[in-house]
Amino acid sequence: MAKRVTGPEIEKLIQLLAKVPGLGPRSARRAALHLIKKKDQLLGPLSNAMGEAYDKVKICSRCGNVDTVDPCTVCTDAQRDQSVIIVVEDVSDLWALERAGAMNAAYHVLGGTLSPLDGIGPDDLNIRGLIDRIGEGGIRELIIAVNATVEGQTTAHYITDQLQGLDVKITRLAHGVPVGGELDYLDEGTLAAALRARTVI
Amino acid sequence: MAKRVTGPEIEKLIQLLAKVPGLGPRSARRAALHLIKKKDQLLGPLSNAMGEAYDKVKICSRCGNVDTVDPCTVCTDAQRDQSVIIVVEDVSDLWALERAGAMNAAYHVLGGTLSPLDGIGPDDLNIRGLIDRIGEGGIRELIIAVNATVEGQTTAHYITDQLQGLDVKITRLAHGVPVGGELDYLDEGTLAAALRARTVI
Repeated sequence: MAKRVTGPEIEKLIQLLAKVPGLGPRSARRAALHLIKKKDQLLGPLSNAMGEAYDKVKICSRCGNVDTVDPCTVCTDAQRDQSVIIVVEDVSDLWALERAGAMNAAYHVLGGTLSPLDGIGPDDLNIRGLIDRIGEGGIRELIIAVNATVEGQTTAHYITDQLQGLDVKITRLAHGVPVGGELDYLDEGTLAAALRARTVI
Repeated sequence: MAKRVTGPEIEKLIQLLAKVPGLGPRSARRAALHLIKKKDQLLGPLSNAMGEAYDKVKICSRCGNVDTVDPCTVCTDAQRDQSVIIVVEDVSDLWALERAGAMNAAYHVLGGTLSPLDGIGPDDLNIRGLIDRIGEGGIRELIIAVNATVEGQTTAHYITDQLQGLDVKITRLAHGVPVGGELDYLDEGTLAAALRARTVI
């Protein structure tokens, strides 16, 4: 703004809101005004919720999930089959797979993928923790659900190598045509994978 | 989410973030995770900024602007020509006009437009305050900068009627082709207005 038209506290709020993913400088201003107009219904509760999250948020020391208790809700859930671990890159992947609701298993969040170019090696990821969990015994299957990118697949290979000789079944997500997807828009790699992995009707 | 995978404090944060304009349920989850990952750089400061805004925000009793002081920064700015008042619907319009930086005037925020269908009459808007400000004297010009919608124009007419007989010049924003706009995409009303208000080169 060319000139100050509002208090520094409000300018500060706009600047910080603009750093939230999904909001830019323009929508941050709109969001700030909306929050101020809904002071008691939204600004106050949101401020409190953020303060509470700030105080209570923990990274689960067992699986790497984000929660307010440690070990997290997923790790301590007796309803889940804790002998199956789904390995994911990020907490957002854990949440996405849970929304699918197809498995009732435990998780392990790596916190990224191997990427030598970015200087991210095995020690920067939560791989040691995964090997320790399997070493404790009681794990039947490891589902490696990393992204189907080059870095993701490299990470999957590395983990498979590290677990060689341990008595645990290692699987990965199926490649194929997305449900609702049109063949015409799919890349050759996906189509080839879908053909190779065809199933009997 | 089918099943709880994280603490209730984090679920609460996501729910509230989803109410911020510009964020939906999906981007609220992404935003919450980002905030949690940037706990000390973003979540903490944003929580504090919101708390501070909540405590300090005031509506200027003179012009209706949002600020942390009353009367607001604009009303007390001695550098501004306080004898010219720009009348706007909303605080966001005030901020937008200030970004244009074309005028160095005072403002008056109506807080909406007349809309009989929605039950919004003159008493629901800050029109009384505007008439009082003009009654105090010292106002040379009133620029009515409401939106070019039916409700906006109705409001402009109502205000003009109310101020009949007072010694103040009343003007409105020019209609015409937006700077950078293409004629082919403009509606007939705008083109007709631009032709009628043509200026000598």
